[in-house]
Amino acid sequence: MLQDFFTPSVQHALDLVGIFVFAISGALLAVRKNFDVFGMAVLAEVTALGGGLFRDLVIGAVPPAAFTDLGFFLMPLVATALVFFLHPVVERTQAAVNVFDAAGLGLFCVTGATKAYEYGLGLTASAVMGLATAVGGGVLRDVLANEVPSLLRWDRDLYAVPAIVGATLVVLCIRFEMLNPFTSGVAAVTAFLIRILAMRYHWRAPRAWNRRSSAAEEVIPEKATA
Amino acid sequence: MLQDFFTPSVQHALDLVGIFVFAISGALLAVRKNFDVFGMAVLAEVTALGGGLFRDLVIGAVPPAAFTDLGFFLMPLVATALVFFLHPVVERTQAAVNVFDAAGLGLFCVTGATKAYEYGLGLTASAVMGLATAVGGGVLRDVLANEVPSLLRWDRDLYAVPAIVGATLVVLCIRFEMLNPFTSGVAAVTAFLIRILAMRYHWRAPRAWNRRSSAAEEVIPEKATA
Amino acid sequence: MLQDFFTPSVQHALDLVGIFVFAISGALLAVRKNFDVFGMAVLAEVTALGGGLFRDLVIGAVPPAAFTDLGFFLMPLVATALVFFLHPVVERTQAAVNVFDAAGLGLFCVTGATKAYEYGLGLTASAVMGLATAVGGGVLRDVLANEVPSLLRWDRDLYAVPAIVGATLVVLCIRFEMLNPFTSGVAAVTAFLIRILAMRYHWRAPRAWNRRSSAAEEVIPEKATA
Repeated sequence: MLQDFFTPSVQHALDLVGIFVFAISGALLAVRKNFDVFGMAVLAEVTALGGGLFRDLVIGAVPPAAFTDLGFFLMPLVATALVFFLHPVVERTQAAVNVFDAAGLGLFCVTGATKAYEYGLGLTASAVMGLATAVGGGVLRDVLANEVPSLLRWDRDLYAVPAIVGATLVVLCIRFEMLNPFTSGVAAVTAFLIRILAMRYHWRAPRAWNRRSSAAEEVIPEKATA
Repeated sequence: MLQDFFTPSVQHALDLVGIFVFAISGALLAVRKNFDVFGMAVLAEVTALGGGLFRDLVIGAVPPAAFTDLGFFLMPLVATALVFFLHPVVERTQAAVNVFDAAGLGLFCVTGATKAYEYGLGLTASAVMGLATAVGGGVLRDVLANEVPSLLRWDRDLYAVPAIVGATLVVLCIRFEMLNPFTSGVAAVTAFLIRILAMRYHWRAPRAWNRRSSAAEEVIPEKATA
Repeated sequence: MLQDFFTPSVQHALDLVGIFVFAISGALLAVRKNFDVFGMAVLAEVTALGGGLFRDLVIGAVPPAAFTDLGFFLMPLVATALVFFLHPVVERTQAAVNVFDAAGLGLFCVTGATKAYEYGLGLTASAVMGLATAVGGGVLRDVLANEVPSLLRWDRDLYAVPAIVGATLVVLCIRFEMLNPFTSGVAAVTAFLIRILAMRYHWRAPRAWNRRSSAAEEVIPEKATA
């Protein structure tokens, strides 16, 4: 029954939208890092499909959807072509990209948690897989670009929290047998809105108490550790 | 019979201890890198569970133990909370953390090699999986923190060798049908003690012969390669 | 029938040659990064086996060939020993290493695509897995060494394109039922020659249009992004 939450075509269209916007963020980072067009395509594919690929390997959904659905593979190439030719325009619409990225985040945390539960994981593990599906691609993108993952940095607006909230809502709905297309939508929209608000008001998470150097609060020295 | 080596409860308790101390090292690195509390939790989880997750994906133990045992997931969060509130205290007890980390190393190389053999890998491959289980989490931790993995650096005390010795002892015991709780314990303690001695006497591994620049022996220029 | 393309012994020998030359490139990078002998061995193993390991996890060939074939594991250790004792000689023969690396690239993109198709992937996905098999190890090598993967950098000669061409030829042959030892060989040799020509004439891929700073074309500031 879980697979009836969305009609397949609606679900698939939403997946493609999420993949597309994540791919845009990967291709844009590649431009900023001065990569060539193949580097752009690789980073777009990894960002868009990495989270779902990790989820599918963990839950044993082999071969992963990223390699069985041609649309999943082609969409990042479309995003790459768009950024390749129009990236000044795309960057000027960064605000729009951020909104779509938030939509992808909300969608992926819901579909990730739902698919993990379908494959037999427990409730907590399903919520974790929802989070991993939503943020995994971005972490792989930053690792390949040799940057500190923005997910981990304190000077970025909350990104994990919206996905945690959305995935937690999904597993609570499963627990109380209330998961249906409507509640799934509510979970996705909640995650989406929290992310939008976090960007609007620059919500950030606290760092450890009693850090010794208050100067460290101003800058992130990327290579400061011994 | 292999699963009788430890009683399940003892085995599980030892696993939790190993996970806890590895998680501490991940959370401490996150503090040094100035990550926020979610970055701390992610790095703690990855450090503690990454090695076992890699092993389980390779040997086909899907879904991995990291996602089926709630305790495995919660322990790194406890470690994160501890470091979040008390990290100056935890850092002052770095020596104690190092001892526990050595204990985790010894334990994980033994359980990793044993589990790999149970899943049908050969003796050499099982030893390699023991090594990968023990050091994999730390490598992922350093990659996510955008650092050169300390496993690879010549200026760190021996870390791979103790795990190689422990895992090799396990597969030798399997080969000669001598694997039992006692010999498993001997292998784990041997790896633990070698690691402790390596830290105490700063044992290091050699680098390639005839390196051209002797100046390079003094510092590691992180970005010196072309 | 697909498995009859090469006699097993010829196939295996070619695999070992590809693994060996990729391992040499990993061990050489480890020397340049000042890693110790264990770091060299880890980087050699990862470079040589990483691409195939990723492919096997994705297509569900568990445990992966990297852990079932002792020769696959030992070959990188031989390469490590060679580089350890003779690396000035090996570096002086960099041109020869590059030729062997091109041979490994050609071979791996063909065997990777073929194996993926045997495991039930579609034609496009099989071509992608051929590419991933050929370049995956090098990407992992660079990530572990904390460098921007040379695959992604615009100032490196074409590396992905030869593998894409080779893997595409393989799936075209499969599509038109023309895959046999001869056409497989043609695909591998084609990829090999394109890579050789790319190095000889410094073929490079374009970057995104209308990059704002032309100064950025001269240097790659590794940490220039925000």
